[in-house]
Amino acid sequence: MPDLVRETGKRLRNWGRWGADDQRGTLNYITPADIVRAASLIRRGDVFSLAIPFDAKGPQIDQPRRFNPIHRMMITGPDCTTGAIRFPGGVGFSDDMVIMPLQCATQWDALSHCFEDGRMYNGYDANEVSSRGAKRNGIDKIARGIVARGVLLDMPRVKNVRWLEAGYAIGAEDLDGALAHHHVTVGRGDALLVRTGHMTLCRERGSWGDYAGGDAPGLSFHTADWMHRRQIAAVATDTWGMEVRPNEFPDVFQPLHQVCIPNMGLTIGEIFFLDELADDCARDGVYEFFFVAPPLPITGAVGSPINPLAIK
Amino acid sequence: MPDLVRETGKRLRNWGRWGADDQRGTLNYITPADIVRAASLIRRGDVFSLAIPFDAKGPQIDQPRRFNPIHRMMITGPDCTTGAIRFPGGVGFSDDMVIMPLQCATQWDALSHCFEDGRMYNGYDANEVSSRGAKRNGIDKIARGIVARGVLLDMPRVKNVRWLEAGYAIGAEDLDGALAHHHVTVGRGDALLVRTGHMTLCRERGSWGDYAGGDAPGLSFHTADWMHRRQIAAVATDTWGMEVRPNEFPDVFQPLHQVCIPNMGLTIGEIFFLDELADDCARDGVYEFFFVAPPLPITGAVGSPINPLAIK
Amino acid sequence: MPDLVRETGKRLRNWGRWGADDQRGTLNYITPADIVRAASLIRRGDVFSLAIPFDAKGPQIDQPRRFNPIHRMMITGPDCTTGAIRFPGGVGFSDDMVIMPLQCATQWDALSHCFEDGRMYNGYDANEVSSRGAKRNGIDKIARGIVARGVLLDMPRVKNVRWLEAGYAIGAEDLDGALAHHHVTVGRGDALLVRTGHMTLCRERGSWGDYAGGDAPGLSFHTADWMHRRQIAAVATDTWGMEVRPNEFPDVFQPLHQVCIPNMGLTIGEIFFLDELADDCARDGVYEFFFVAPPLPITGAVGSPINPLAIK
Amino acid sequence: MPDLVRETGKRLRNWGRWGADDQRGTLNYITPADIVRAASLIRRGDVFSLAIPFDAKGPQIDQPRRFNPIHRMMITGPDCTTGAIRFPGGVGFSDDMVIMPLQCATQWDALSHCFEDGRMYNGYDANEVSSRGAKRNGIDKIARGIVARGVLLDMPRVKNVRWLEAGYAIGAEDLDGALAHHHVTVGRGDALLVRTGHMTLCRERGSWGDYAGGDAPGLSFHTADWMHRRQIAAVATDTWGMEVRPNEFPDVFQPLHQVCIPNMGLTIGEIFFLDELADDCARDGVYEFFFVAPPLPITGAVGSPINPLAIK
Repeated sequence: MPDLVRETGKRLRNWGRWGADDQRGTLNYITPADIVRAASLIRRGDVFSLAIPFDAKGPQIDQPRRFNPIHRMMITGPDCTTGAIRFPGGVGFSDDMVIMPLQCATQWDALSHCFEDGRMYNGYDANEVSSRGAKRNGIDKIARGIVARGVLLDMPRVKNVRWLEAGYAIGAEDLDGALAHHHVTVGRGDALLVRTGHMTLCRERGSWGDYAGGDAPGLSFHTADWMHRRQIAAVATDTWGMEVRPNEFPDVFQPLHQVCIPNMGLTIGEIFFLDELADDCARDGVYEFFFVAPPLPITGAVGSPINPLAIK
Repeated sequence: MPDLVRETGKRLRNWGRWGADDQRGTLNYITPADIVRAASLIRRGDVFSLAIPFDAKGPQIDQPRRFNPIHRMMITGPDCTTGAIRFPGGVGFSDDMVIMPLQCATQWDALSHCFEDGRMYNGYDANEVSSRGAKRNGIDKIARGIVARGVLLDMPRVKNVRWLEAGYAIGAEDLDGALAHHHVTVGRGDALLVRTGHMTLCRERGSWGDYAGGDAPGLSFHTADWMHRRQIAAVATDTWGMEVRPNEFPDVFQPLHQVCIPNMGLTIGEIFFLDELADDCARDGVYEFFFVAPPLPITGAVGSPINPLAIK
Repeated sequence: MPDLVRETGKRLRNWGRWGADDQRGTLNYITPADIVRAASLIRRGDVFSLAIPFDAKGPQIDQPRRFNPIHRMMITGPDCTTGAIRFPGGVGFSDDMVIMPLQCATQWDALSHCFEDGRMYNGYDANEVSSRGAKRNGIDKIARGIVARGVLLDMPRVKNVRWLEAGYAIGAEDLDGALAHHHVTVGRGDALLVRTGHMTLCRERGSWGDYAGGDAPGLSFHTADWMHRRQIAAVATDTWGMEVRPNEFPDVFQPLHQVCIPNMGLTIGEIFFLDELADDCARDGVYEFFFVAPPLPITGAVGSPINPLAIK
Repeated sequence: MPDLVRETGKRLRNWGRWGADDQRGTLNYITPADIVRAASLIRRGDVFSLAIPFDAKGPQIDQPRRFNPIHRMMITGPDCTTGAIRFPGGVGFSDDMVIMPLQCATQWDALSHCFEDGRMYNGYDANEVSSRGAKRNGIDKIARGIVARGVLLDMPRVKNVRWLEAGYAIGAEDLDGALAHHHVTVGRGDALLVRTGHMTLCRERGSWGDYAGGDAPGLSFHTADWMHRRQIAAVATDTWGMEVRPNEFPDVFQPLHQVCIPNMGLTIGEIFFLDELADDCARDGVYEFFFVAPPLPITGAVGSPINPLAIK
């Protein structure tokens, strides 16, 4: 790992900031008062779902571990209408199940998702994330979240393009420019949603292609300081991996993750569907909203599928 | 099926009420203005998670189809710390998956979960819920929901007991009594949460026992009219099956489901954890709140695991 | 369905042949004496595995229901070597699991896999194969099998090509020609293995392509009579679907299956790896062997993954 | 770990015996000539399946990692008979899937299943069994097996009891006594099946109880030498864990496994159904047979479900 990555991580490290036992990281920035203020952003009562469909047509194509959700029925209408399966009174029920990697679609990374030098956020041993699941920093530790003020930065709109090109590294100045363009601010306890348009590209061409793991626009490594200084609670994008790809350092995988997750304790969201919300924000010029995205409290999980809602 | 069940269903039937193509049922009662008003209930910024832990210790014991969530790791801390699996730069990642029935823990029933005489809500053919999933009334149809004003009726507190006994059928007069006791009203577009204390009993004795499928307190069949008249958007309880068990008609399985789901198009929630919220409501005397419980938009699913949030 | 398909099925129908309760079909042709005779074919003690590897690189690509086996570890070496998971005495164990369609790789079709006009083999109602599994004709009914004399017909070798072209329908005269070429006979109670070379093609080009469900050489519909007359116990090929594709009747899916499975009660094997065995048979000129392919006795299953062995 | 366990392991260690690259261990004892001789034991053509049913009623009750097979349909008879799912020509198909730990029912342990001091059989690093599966000693390495002469030792019959009591440690002298009683020998390359009657007990009482992981009769630690000296190829029992439980050393888990798997490279089978075979052997006085139990060649797996056959 390049020195810069390790040094940046060390510099922005939040270990101990919220106590030696903390497992929530930057979500601690969100105060009850922030939530009350965020609620005041619900002005029209319009709800936007930021999740992609969870199904076999998802973006996990030829991935080493992750696959698209496998949804299977356990009892069906035809079981009941034919009398093959009978319930008292002749009524009928259906039931179903899913098999899915927790990070196969729209999702939160838990703070146990990423390790640096054998350590997790707050200094916990990476070996605490064994095959038994995450004893520390599991997604279950943030079951009450994430509720916050959300801010959308719609980079393609700012730059007047349909989408950023793969490989485009969104820098701190880009983020500042977008804030100015949108006449919005972002700060302590906010959930920052950055639209790159990469998912728009996939939707327009009708295929995910190498969306999962391939080249993509995304946040530059150098935005870590910017997010740290502003005390962002969570960050999410419409891409597979939040940060720009190819990565900015040839010899380290997802370097911004290294700084954000194990060091800052910053919750990261990925594969967010932001197009519809972005269109609405462009229409009314309001880029802030009530944001709520509760993870499934799967005990010891290192991520969670979510259906984030933005409410304006 | 007894005539009363079929007649009640027919009488309270909402087919066509929101158009021949509707797949959202009583969630249509919720207007944007309702959501704005509900947001005003966020006064302190306190968030309550109404989900039970999703893990192997859940309530699905010896059930015919449903089982508790199976969470398994796909890459772990030890994989990384030993170098057994290497990423460029020596960084480390963990990843995991889940196998679970969609209704194994805290959940919404989709409107495709229940059939009467071969029909679903809005008259759709039950055979449209084949092994390929629900073509109609799937949970994906309510991806933007459920955001509403929530109202808790804490029956044990009203009756000054720790929990209602198994078999206790909560009647309309019980609901009215609770509203009066709590100094709260419930009406069009609200999410009604009814606490029976049955989960409290399980937690105190340290085992789920026959929580799934066994005898339990719950709503009486005769509350269907009450809910219909008040134009409730969704109803949920802290029990496995919402309605009282043993069922009130010996020869029909879950008769209230038959009226609510295929006829009224009422979204039902089950296995909600309401104890913590109830304690808070007792403390401050406020039994209404902002309620948000987005389902995972699994295409064609007949239910969804959820982590409902109540925000006061 | 064309009349010819239905008529052929009716003509070759074995319903009742082995009793009204039979669920084993043509496997009944195999007598204990046949097994003893088959054992005498074990002359050199060489064992050939006829299974493909069960893993993520299998042939199920973009299929509507089937996917390749998902193998995941539940406890690993690194869990133990790091002490993340400890057993008394410091010993270590690994454990794993699989998620797989039962017909995703080398497999037997059970007699409950295919229906004609709502009926299964021996006249059972197709509705007996509900979401609860197959009450009749499940793979568990043939747990003692399949042990038989095996005969390989190596069609490409007979025709002096590397593989038959996709769409080539192997006819009865082809089978007779191969028997003559190989100086072997096939008859009552035998397991007939037919090599088309289609898997060889996939292996040589390094990709499965549309092996699953695409065009392929295979048995002609018109071999049904030939197999019936010879009282074959089971038939298997190195292709996805045993019979030629595109199917010989444009308006019916897998017509030979319709005759073989629901009518004849013939057990069909697919995705057999026959190349190594074929090479050996070419070397020694012996195309018969002891054949054993026990299914996993999964209760109510309509197929089973297998590792068939040919022993010479 | 007690010195005796480690010393015994070291003394009986077969590392390098079949080459530095060997991954088959004691299965190397089986020669082609042995297989030919074993075939001569097929005298009557009777086949015995030694697998228990693979279903939800299996023995995995409240286990930390393993669960019973989850079999689910993917398309059913009712889907077809109702026309909910249509195939060209009106034909019908069913399909299904399974989710199962590879060692949940009748099974082989792979040589990668067990580690001592961070090493596997033949000295390979235990870290080679990461979350990616077993790079070494995977079950796929024995895809051609196991074909051998089988010998059954029916301990309860020898001792004239219905089953051995839980905790009974079958010693070398017991094994010798059984050989004498049965007038059979066991030696190089044989598969040794030892019946304790523990499964008989479960079947008679109608419940598995603590069969998985609880107290049970089984082989004594001190039979390791006996098996090593006789050059057994594989050993299997009708119990969950092959060796006696409680284990004979209080401070080490499954000590005989430690000697057999990582040191000797002995393939171990568990949860074998031996009652029917045992009855037959008692009837005809013949305790040897042709034994064949091919694992599913799941790439990198550390065990495999099997349907072992004994053929007499």
